[in-house]
Amino acid sequence: MTLTFQAPPTEKTTLEAGSDFTPKFDEKGLLTAVVTDVRDGELLMVAHMNAEALSLTLETGIAHYYSRSRKSIWKKGETSGNLQTVRELRTDCDQDAVWLKVSVAGHDATCHTGRRSCFYRSASIEEGKPTLTINDDHKHFDPQEIYADPLNK
Amino acid sequence: MTLTFQAPPTEKTTLEAGSDFTPKFDEKGLLTAVVTDVRDGELLMVAHMNAEALSLTLETGIAHYYSRSRKSIWKKGETSGNLQTVRELRTDCDQDAVWLKVSVAGHDATCHTGRRSCFYRSASIEEGKPTLTINDDHKHFDPQEIYADPLNK
Repeated sequence: MTLTFQAPPTEKTTLEAGSDFTPKFDEKGLLTAVVTDVRDGELLMVAHMNAEALSLTLETGIAHYYSRSRKSIWKKGETSGNLQTVRELRTDCDQDAVWLKVSVAGHDATCHTGRRSCFYRSASIEEGKPTLTINDDHKHFDPQEIYADPLNK
Repeated sequence: MTLTFQAPPTEKTTLEAGSDFTPKFDEKGLLTAVVTDVRDGELLMVAHMNAEALSLTLETGIAHYYSRSRKSIWKKGETSGNLQTVRELRTDCDQDAVWLKVSVAGHDATCHTGRRSCFYRSASIEEGKPTLTINDDHKHFDPQEIYADPLNK
């Protein structure tokens, strides 16, 4: 990691209106990362970044996350080929989340199930029960073929 | 809260392909909520929901969150008038995040700074330093006028 992120300022105006990017990592050292397709704004996934993943992303222009299950840096798409080129990276008012607008290579798919987006189901109340309905069932690739290691998504 | 959310299934296929909405709350009892404008897909904010906020949102169709700073349910826009009507609520493959597509009432603004979106700044490396640039500086309302209590955003 070559970038150094300074600690967030205590002064709210500096945090919200200043020009220093001082991400507010949580107690686990993570930020929330929201990833949309720059093509049409579709929400593709939500993930987490530690300082190293954020630094690698800014330096290389390719999205890197922190895998909480594997406890390691995760270069998204390294196995599947569905790498994400970051066209813009934004942060929010209190700098505890980032928004990546990306172009997806490979199968044009982000979810490890083979779908374009991880958000392929909508929720509603049916007969008093929280219920899901599949909105997108198109698989762009076969996960069984792509992933030898089921954790390697 | 009238809805009961069952515990997530241990079987991955059921979690990813089943019709039961079994949100995976984290150790603090929270889910990440990503909020976009149904009009054009703009990312407006990222917040958190506990089971009560999620239940209220599904039942009323108006977005409710859990405020980590105030440690209480937060009906977004209650003070500012910028209520969010939820047009669709989706969840992701492992059901630990939700995506709300909303229509914003009032000033058509979501950020407590008065801007339409909380993500009004982009990040880049300038002279080796992580730097922010303001992309949207249009204030739809004056926060000083709207919020008597600065925490009440």
